[in-house]
Amino acid sequence: MDRVKRATHHTTARDEDLTCKPAGRSRAPFNWAVRVYYEDTDLGGVVYHANYLRFLERARTEWLRSLGFEQDALRERLKIQFVVVEAKIGFRRPARFNDELLVSVKVRETGRASIVFDQDIHAAAARHAEICRAEIRVACIDSGNFKPKPLPPELLTELAA
Amino acid sequence: MDRVKRATHHTTARDEDLTCKPAGRSRAPFNWAVRVYYEDTDLGGVVYHANYLRFLERARTEWLRSLGFEQDALRERLKIQFVVVEAKIGFRRPARFNDELLVSVKVRETGRASIVFDQDIHAAAARHAEICRAEIRVACIDSGNFKPKPLPPELLTELAA
Amino acid sequence: MDRVKRATHHTTARDEDLTCKPAGRSRAPFNWAVRVYYEDTDLGGVVYHANYLRFLERARTEWLRSLGFEQDALRERLKIQFVVVEAKIGFRRPARFNDELLVSVKVRETGRASIVFDQDIHAAAARHAEICRAEIRVACIDSGNFKPKPLPPELLTELAA
Amino acid sequence: MDRVKRATHHTTARDEDLTCKPAGRSRAPFNWAVRVYYEDTDLGGVVYHANYLRFLERARTEWLRSLGFEQDALRERLKIQFVVVEAKIGFRRPARFNDELLVSVKVRETGRASIVFDQDIHAAAARHAEICRAEIRVACIDSGNFKPKPLPPELLTELAA
Repeated sequence: MDRVKRATHHTTARDEDLTCKPAGRSRAPFNWAVRVYYEDTDLGGVVYHANYLRFLERARTEWLRSLGFEQDALRERLKIQFVVVEAKIGFRRPARFNDELLVSVKVRETGRASIVFDQDIHAAAARHAEICRAEIRVACIDSGNFKPKPLPPELLTELAA
Repeated sequence: MDRVKRATHHTTARDEDLTCKPAGRSRAPFNWAVRVYYEDTDLGGVVYHANYLRFLERARTEWLRSLGFEQDALRERLKIQFVVVEAKIGFRRPARFNDELLVSVKVRETGRASIVFDQDIHAAAARHAEICRAEIRVACIDSGNFKPKPLPPELLTELAA
Repeated sequence: MDRVKRATHHTTARDEDLTCKPAGRSRAPFNWAVRVYYEDTDLGGVVYHANYLRFLERARTEWLRSLGFEQDALRERLKIQFVVVEAKIGFRRPARFNDELLVSVKVRETGRASIVFDQDIHAAAARHAEICRAEIRVACIDSGNFKPKPLPPELLTELAA
Repeated sequence: MDRVKRATHHTTARDEDLTCKPAGRSRAPFNWAVRVYYEDTDLGGVVYHANYLRFLERARTEWLRSLGFEQDALRERLKIQFVVVEAKIGFRRPARFNDELLVSVKVRETGRASIVFDQDIHAAAARHAEICRAEIRVACIDSGNFKPKPLPPELLTELAA
């Protein structure tokens, strides 16, 4: 909640703070564990391909939370929302029911109103087999009119840290 | 679209029009065809149980449309939204990938701000095997504050027809 | 894994072990935390009703795991699968994006080849508002021919503990 | 059904029939209509991004059916299954609740055991606004061991027609 307050009183930051910066290279990679349930599988006995996009988003949500940003607060107070505008996914190996997966989040680059993520999904078990690999471009938009809106300055600060 | 206009200028109808009425018993049963795709199945090779609730709602949406009510118009102009408040479902027989199903919609009763539906899902093929049977109570709410809101009078008129 | 072995060598248990028993009343209630993500919501801004069935199943899966039963092992070694055959749900209050929910699992009764669960979903936050309440009947079936199959004796033993 | 029979007795076709061929350029573009329901939307009021992958697959399924190929028959009789191995999607404009969409299917190229599709999704209404555009690579695999398996010769024949 304190973070939400910061988010609010930082919005007076000058526009110069919003220009492109190298994304937090020093930051340790973020991983989020996802369990495969019945709901995620299809009749092939493996995770239905579209559901990996869900897993990838769960991890981005938790990564944002780990940096102190709650998306409901961003939405209510800054009228900001993130939307996926481009996705490239290579499906390498199927994940199965009951598998525990690790979904990584790494910022490749940030623009004025967008972030490109490199993400992959690995099996949590023994040999960490790669399940899929994705590049996801997310835009920051005004939740009212859906127009692009600059990334919050304090998020950029975090990413550059 | 003309229907939407009617919906709008009927909102001055008096409250008496909103009291409970026997639901259009004379109306022919409504059926909506749904195809089972990969996305609907789970590793058991059959439709994932929660997805039948989706099929049931698709049929209710199309039934409303067949009566001339578009839910986006109801939402935008009358600030009305329908939400499921109670569901009882018996799953009799699994539906499989590629099956074509028929989802029925029948109004059992209407209240001031709610409708109870009897619905079932049958296989469209040969012997019309019953897949599931459900009783779904839907409330009419204000899409802003989520409080109950009387059913639109003209919908009640349709249901009593 | 040791549990899986037990599961295997207990299958010679006599049929008498499979008769109905009072379900582990003494057992502490089981709760599983579920976070609401974008994928779970609909345009009303709240969790899409069918998705609560997913949350309820995730909790049952984790409850089974907490007792030492992995469903992929049950499936592969005992050819047993659980399917929902009846669901009654009352939706009390909407859950919203980013909410953390607690999903409870309590066995109401066990039959020879079925279990009836009482489950509810509460907000994890402050006042634990009740989101929904459900009664779910699950059948134990042969994963090959979908015919009812007695609950594994050692599961009954656990439930009676 | 007759098609299914053909599928069966054509499996003796020689391997030469399976080599790469230009995909049916002359074939009229295939479009499949998809309605946006509540289940497809998220709290942004628009279709949840992962769900477009479902729409794209529904259209591919119906395109295959239009050519006389039922995937359940392919699976049962030829032990063939199609899986998405790569997806690139650009999300241009959000689709909203109740919109009717047209999902196109066009074969860009076929390999020995894979097909690359160009697909896009447009609004069915007036100005046919483009919703998204995708390139989907689908592999043909053995439904038992998940290894690549040549495309059925008669499908290649259809595609080259």
